[in-house]
Amino acid sequence: MNLVRDMLAGNRQALARLISKVENRDGEVSKIIAELYPKTGRAQVWGITGPPGAGKSTLVDQLVLQLRAKKKRVAVVAVDPSSPFSGGAVLGDRIRMQRHAGDRGVYIRSLGTRGKRGGLSHATKEVLFILDAAGFDIILVETAGVGQTELDVLNIAQTVVVVLVPESGDSIQVMKAGLMEIADVFAVNKSDRPESDRLVHELKTMVGMQDHDENTWLAPILKTEAHRSVGVDSLLKSIESHQEFTTRSGEKQIKAEEFILNEVTDILSEKLSLSLIKIFESKDGQKILKELYHKKLDPYVAADRFSKIISKS
Amino acid sequence: MNLVRDMLAGNRQALARLISKVENRDGEVSKIIAELYPKTGRAQVWGITGPPGAGKSTLVDQLVLQLRAKKKRVAVVAVDPSSPFSGGAVLGDRIRMQRHAGDRGVYIRSLGTRGKRGGLSHATKEVLFILDAAGFDIILVETAGVGQTELDVLNIAQTVVVVLVPESGDSIQVMKAGLMEIADVFAVNKSDRPESDRLVHELKTMVGMQDHDENTWLAPILKTEAHRSVGVDSLLKSIESHQEFTTRSGEKQIKAEEFILNEVTDILSEKLSLSLIKIFESKDGQKILKELYHKKLDPYVAADRFSKIISKS
Repeated sequence: MNLVRDMLAGNRQALARLISKVENRDGEVSKIIAELYPKTGRAQVWGITGPPGAGKSTLVDQLVLQLRAKKKRVAVVAVDPSSPFSGGAVLGDRIRMQRHAGDRGVYIRSLGTRGKRGGLSHATKEVLFILDAAGFDIILVETAGVGQTELDVLNIAQTVVVVLVPESGDSIQVMKAGLMEIADVFAVNKSDRPESDRLVHELKTMVGMQDHDENTWLAPILKTEAHRSVGVDSLLKSIESHQEFTTRSGEKQIKAEEFILNEVTDILSEKLSLSLIKIFESKDGQKILKELYHKKLDPYVAADRFSKIISKS
Repeated sequence: MNLVRDMLAGNRQALARLISKVENRDGEVSKIIAELYPKTGRAQVWGITGPPGAGKSTLVDQLVLQLRAKKKRVAVVAVDPSSPFSGGAVLGDRIRMQRHAGDRGVYIRSLGTRGKRGGLSHATKEVLFILDAAGFDIILVETAGVGQTELDVLNIAQTVVVVLVPESGDSIQVMKAGLMEIADVFAVNKSDRPESDRLVHELKTMVGMQDHDENTWLAPILKTEAHRSVGVDSLLKSIESHQEFTTRSGEKQIKAEEFILNEVTDILSEKLSLSLIKIFESKDGQKILKELYHKKLDPYVAADRFSKIISKS
């Protein structure tokens, strides 16, 4: 496949086209992934999430700059499930890329879809395979963290940074459980604001209250002012410590295996959906559906019949 | 099944327990749905969505009151995919129920889950079967409309009301396409605020710009002040007109059939996930996974092998 070869040789247009193919669930996806998969397994995946307005994009840009100074090749994947109420979050890839124009060590791409549920996190996993094979050292996955799709996406990351701002303070109690589950590192951004010490204190209390022993990673809390590059170096160090921790503890390996299990599950779910669409339109399928619509069959019995048709085909 | 019999006889506790079984994906779900499915098909499903703070719950409560005055039995299902950043939206069923205490014609229930993606919209569909069989005339499905799960849920409704407030005005341009796709009726709530006329005007322009002929439903735009019960009767009339329109146009039948197709698809997806979990743990499965982890197989080839194991079992 020429696109894959060109991409591996460093062609950016080939990279962009491969990602589009995965995003659009092109028929060649299985061939692309089959060819690239053996070349994967090197990249670190960092998730960056937080409520809208927390300054995630600015922080991500600062992380990219510092990583570039260390000669790391960095890709940013901004995941935004298009929904009528999240439309405002769509990121301007072009504007963001301009800052790094001419720097072949940076690649920024938004992913979004109005497709079937599950489709976006499946596509995101496969985009990570591509970027990993393309030789990026670190892939930053940026989400607004508001729904199931974003949580699925964050599950992919080895290290998750939750970005908060002092204003988020009031709602922290409510989201406590959820945050503790996903955060490996907290960044309290816009920390020049007066209430930031209170937020840091609250987070420290929350983190300290978890069951833990000497082998537990306790999420550090870093103060940042992304727009003035303050605290970004410490944040970077914390992320790197967490990466070392997950490697040492074996958690990284477990994550890598879960990633693959989820990818296999997604492939089979997608295959199932496509088979069903065909069967629903077939003569046999229409007969079952008619009985179902007329309530002569219930959905579970109908599902069994469809399942048998799929097994035979 | 005693629970089903009791529920059909009007026992509220049995109703609540059946819903919990569906929500928790209890092993008896298929039996419950098989038994109830023939008794479904009568209820109208209305979706109510809009950004947080638009006053959806107050509006829903007002609709419930007016429907009760017309002797309609009403159920409210508030769907809230638990996510770390939406925690604040969890609705207090008990508080909301208190207003209707002793009124057996009203039932209010929140649904939320941290489970696998797709699980929530699957469970919601099955809860609608239960409420429909229980004899509720109208089921209001309330969502905050921020993610894919909520959109899946809204897809279920025959009529979708999008609730906006003057403050949402600025972001309207961005979410235009998405809104037009899902809205059958617009409610501009808190319409005593000064900017509300501008929002109404913008929405009218947007609706008018759609391709349409005499058979197209153009979403009406209603001004409401839910907290003062203003405009709720007109809103109700618009919803009822839309219900008549979908019945006449055949759209209602199409929706009902799509609903069933999605339910069958969800049943098979769930079955696939459960099969995979078992196979991943089996000896054969472990062998395939080992090759996959060591990159001797790619995920698509591995998926094919798992698919064959599933077909044989």
